Amino acid sequence: MGTVQHVVISVDAMGGDRGPATVVAGIADSARKNPEIAFILHGPKAELEPLVAKRKELAGRVTLRDATGVVSMADKPSQVMRNGKGTSMWSALESVRDKEATVAVSCGNTGALMALSMIRLRKLPGVDRPAIAILWPSRNPQGFNVMLDVGADIKANARDLLQYALMGSSYARNGLELERPRVGLLNVGTEEQKGGAELKEAHDLMKAQADADGYDFVGFVEGGDIPGKRCDVIVTDGFTGNVALKTGEGTASLIGDLLKEAFAYSPLSRISSLLALSSLTRLKKRIDPRRVNGGVFLGLNGTVVKSHGSADETGVSAAVKLAFQLARSGFSERLAARVAARLEESDASAVATDAPSPQDAAGKKDAK
Amino acid sequence: MGTVQHVVISVDAMGGDRGPATVVAGIADSARKNPEIAFILHGPKAELEPLVAKRKELAGRVTLRDATGVVSMADKPSQVMRNGKGTSMWSALESVRDKEATVAVSCGNTGALMALSMIRLRKLPGVDRPAIAILWPSRNPQGFNVMLDVGADIKANARDLLQYALMGSSYARNGLELERPRVGLLNVGTEEQKGGAELKEAHDLMKAQADADGYDFVGFVEGGDIPGKRCDVIVTDGFTGNVALKTGEGTASLIGDLLKEAFAYSPLSRISSLLALSSLTRLKKRIDPRRVNGGVFLGLNGTVVKSHGSADETGVSAAVKLAFQLARSGFSERLAARVAARLEESDASAVATDAPSPQDAAGKKDAK
Repeated sequence: MGTVQHVVISVDAMGGDRGPATVVAGIADSARKNPEIAFILHGPKAELEPLVAKRKELAGRVTLRDATGVVSMADKPSQVMRNGKGTSMWSALESVRDKEATVAVSCGNTGALMALSMIRLRKLPGVDRPAIAILWPSRNPQGFNVMLDVGADIKANARDLLQYALMGSSYARNGLELERPRVGLLNVGTEEQKGGAELKEAHDLMKAQADADGYDFVGFVEGGDIPGKRCDVIVTDGFTGNVALKTGEGTASLIGDLLKEAFAYSPLSRISSLLALSSLTRLKKRIDPRRVNGGVFLGLNGTVVKSHGSADETGVSAAVKLAFQLARSGFSERLAARVAARLEESDASAVATDAPSPQDAAGKKDAK
Repeated sequence: MGTVQHVVISVDAMGGDRGPATVVAGIADSARKNPEIAFILHGPKAELEPLVAKRKELAGRVTLRDATGVVSMADKPSQVMRNGKGTSMWSALESVRDKEATVAVSCGNTGALMALSMIRLRKLPGVDRPAIAILWPSRNPQGFNVMLDVGADIKANARDLLQYALMGSSYARNGLELERPRVGLLNVGTEEQKGGAELKEAHDLMKAQADADGYDFVGFVEGGDIPGKRCDVIVTDGFTGNVALKTGEGTASLIGDLLKEAFAYSPLSRISSLLALSSLTRLKKRIDPRRVNGGVFLGLNGTVVKSHGSADETGVSAAVKLAFQLARSGFSERLAARVAARLEESDASAVATDAPSPQDAAGKKDAK
């Protein structure tokens, strides 16, 4: 007793729009709130050392890894795959590869981070396409829904979508504490005859596999269900998911600005906005994207949390909090076990079996 | 002088969730505000006659067409195509087919309305896939952007997307009074190397055709640009557009409800919400979907405005207003002339020519 068992998070200090000082401020915020957390911080040691030294809450909680290269937002993924060695991003993934941490966090270039994660962490056996999952404010009691893929890949076939259902429901179980998540497949209508052949095939696979994978399949859902309460996990291809994500973000941001404008309109409305401040603050807290900051890369040997490039201290701290929750729950191992169990039990042609199987046992292992 | 030249709109009184009384109330509202407008109203005469008689602003402004059949929300498009004759929806389209009106309005079943429109009005020569265009609240000075297709079809190839650019920019010119609309192609990134082969081909076609078709092509845009100010017209396939539309609507509606909740939280916030009422009303007016109520079917011989099924009186009136604007500007004829001009000038293989062409003349005809 007396000593705290630390959960170690690997953090890329570089590559965000606001530079390493913001990342260090963010992890200091996390360290202050959470005594269980410790960090391996990757970047140019000469630059990071004084930043860390200034934060007394980080004393004894940070291991520095010197990496002088930086992946910029303009770098192409293919370039980074060839020349990325020696960058802070590469180094942050290396800590997960070497099992020093199970989750890495980066604010850097999404495409480069996914490309490096693929070559350094490698895909889980049985996963053809890793996916990026995000949390979306919703009408459900847990306050958020999971949507994936939001842009790891622009395509997904029926079997990829089935894997997304497995990975997304595992994420919802560990990240949102939902024992049996409800999964929906995004389409343009809820009738079974709509959508293309690929979607119909995915629909039938997901329906057949639901019990074995430990989720309830609600069938086709529509865009309005992403912030809705019909399901907890929305499965779609990376093209559609990325457009939906950015449309929703853009619309929310437009409404926020129009709200500000409306309140600045007249002296009376300015006074009323002062009175309304606490109401608006509560609302902002509920839907502030900084507080749900973190796309999660699923389907790799290890988990990567991608923070927004423009994340401020609050955003970085939220991404670290998510990484901590996933690391402490043993999410990476649980998801790997689930994917492996399905792989053992079924080859590609037999995946739709409904018979009781070893997956039920794996299911219990994954459940809370 | 003294007599008013009426613009005639064909209106389907049936098939909306709230029944014909709401539709009649909506057109009465339009008639009161706009002395230039007149209606052909389609539905069961025995039911409509007393509803119309009660509204003195409709006296002498409504021609009733008896049609006793009703297309319900549950009817399948294929059924309606076989058995739709005699319904109010069929009858409303017939008035456009017979040139009594150039624009029809219906609150009914979208799939059935599109299916009937295709067989009764027929596609414009040169258009393979008609599209549904909507107006989306945006940061642009005109307050709205055009997005299409939002669900006429789930697929679109490069040449369909090129047609959508032509049709969407013509709509923006006539509906939003933008002389030279800026058109963007929806993708998951703005770099030219992203997206699939179909999108790259569409990108190059749209770029080559921009001058001849009278728009500026801004290249690839992202979901965040739908409510943004980078372009005025967003082109995408009907699957992606439908998901984006419903995600944006769902997110806006969630924020609206959370806002109400936030203001109901405490006595102080309830008082402040009273003071803030005029600000919030201004905001609501700006983004109220009822005020931009109307998907427009483009690419047919005639124009069809699809109002929300759940539209109330204000919503119906907004759809009628849009129909009136399009009818008065001669939009149906202008768009047809534009499509025909391009068809004459180019066969499928020569569409990407950059040479000056008869289309420039057509462009001036279309411009305000």
